[in-house]
Amino acid sequence: MRYARVSAGGRAVWARVGEEEVELLSGSPIETDPEVLGVLPRADAVWLPPVVPPVFYAVGMNYPRHIEHAARLGNPAAVVPERPEVGYRANNALTGHRTPIVRPAEVEGRFEAEPELVAVIGRTLRRATRDEARAAVFGWTIGNDVSARTWQHQDRTFWRSKNSDTFKPMGPWIETDVDALAQTTTLRVNGEVRAAFPTGDMVFDPFDYIVEITRHNTMLPGDVLWMGAESTCGLAPGDTVEVEISGIGTLSNPVQREEEQGNRP
Amino acid sequence: MRYARVSAGGRAVWARVGEEEVELLSGSPIETDPEVLGVLPRADAVWLPPVVPPVFYAVGMNYPRHIEHAARLGNPAAVVPERPEVGYRANNALTGHRTPIVRPAEVEGRFEAEPELVAVIGRTLRRATRDEARAAVFGWTIGNDVSARTWQHQDRTFWRSKNSDTFKPMGPWIETDVDALAQTTTLRVNGEVRAAFPTGDMVFDPFDYIVEITRHNTMLPGDVLWMGAESTCGLAPGDTVEVEISGIGTLSNPVQREEEQGNRP
Repeated sequence: MRYARVSAGGRAVWARVGEEEVELLSGSPIETDPEVLGVLPRADAVWLPPVVPPVFYAVGMNYPRHIEHAARLGNPAAVVPERPEVGYRANNALTGHRTPIVRPAEVEGRFEAEPELVAVIGRTLRRATRDEARAAVFGWTIGNDVSARTWQHQDRTFWRSKNSDTFKPMGPWIETDVDALAQTTTLRVNGEVRAAFPTGDMVFDPFDYIVEITRHNTMLPGDVLWMGAESTCGLAPGDTVEVEISGIGTLSNPVQREEEQGNRP
Repeated sequence: MRYARVSAGGRAVWARVGEEEVELLSGSPIETDPEVLGVLPRADAVWLPPVVPPVFYAVGMNYPRHIEHAARLGNPAAVVPERPEVGYRANNALTGHRTPIVRPAEVEGRFEAEPELVAVIGRTLRRATRDEARAAVFGWTIGNDVSARTWQHQDRTFWRSKNSDTFKPMGPWIETDVDALAQTTTLRVNGEVRAAFPTGDMVFDPFDYIVEITRHNTMLPGDVLWMGAESTCGLAPGDTVEVEISGIGTLSNPVQREEEQGNRP
């Protein structure tokens, strides 16, 4: 099953996604069994981030080839982790499928996409076993961990390099029936393949992370865990970037420069 | 006015706090003008974190004397920041007034309290001026940025050193009518004063941070901004730690070792 959040009448509404239509739901399918309230042609759907998480977890160095690449570029943090350690991202940065990624006017230098698998947690979880971790994943979606590298290197934290508004496209939907680690992740810019890698070729998989996180943190329904990327590529205003994970879908976003946005709230 | 969230009938309910009673409200006072649904003797209130933020911002080095102290202890990150830069904390760690801070079984070494002023954002805000930043603060509460120093030094991120369950007591309420920067912050353990400092003696004040954050991030109603601490002190199981900010209130929490907790969800 595929679940999304769409904009309907100015409100965020949960939806079940079919081939031609989306069914609008009475509530979240994560903890309840919502009713169908109406139907929309799929082509008319305005896609929102499929969930706004209570806690937004993100994994850094988690693909061996990405770590090797970063080490060659001289990044001192690029060592294969001995333990699954996470960081956090911020909800203001989330944006949905087809909405613009806005490159801030002050950003210079490398502005990059990172194509990531995202686990969506379905239940309250503490001290999970690996089997419990597996059973607690409600479904899988796709994230693009857009990063402004100059800020990433010059700031004490990732606050703006990875968390400025629109830097975290997520979607288009949550797929509940897929063997996510057996898929292929493909990154395209303007239709051209810029990277493709086995989604599951990770140092630690999502269940390793959930076991480790829940040793100390209660994970909550709707929490998301972004799993890192093997490859990145540069983005420029005017580009359209797509992250496809086979068996899940394709997250597509145009890139704009901030000046094109006009006044923002 | 003082606003809190309390547990009533197993649900989180907003409340207006008086001297003897708390009035239970129909909704959040941050964006609406809720009705009074009932009244509870204040002594019976079970205090929850006064807000669960969409984004949980936290400032690190922000008091000159704290930075000097950390530098003397050999912390290489202890330099006076040239710009207001924030990090993020995680909602799972939040807990309310009077609930236990649980020291995990694995924690060894320094386990410390950091008494902090917290700004609660009241409106959607982007590219704020200093005046807009000031007007956007709904009110002020108190936070205790509990930190396990060994984990803080050995991990790549602050994920568990500062974000394990119960490490972020916040409350008891949000005070809307106070000149927060003209107050005194006092840290007590078992009734003994361990630190006292002028709340407003900061490198950058909350409005500086809000101006800087909203250059890139949209701040949302209910977001919190923890402002850092001048002093810390050690905590041990059996202690009761209090953070008082004059004009706001006193946040009090007992400290327990994990073993005393029994089975957790």
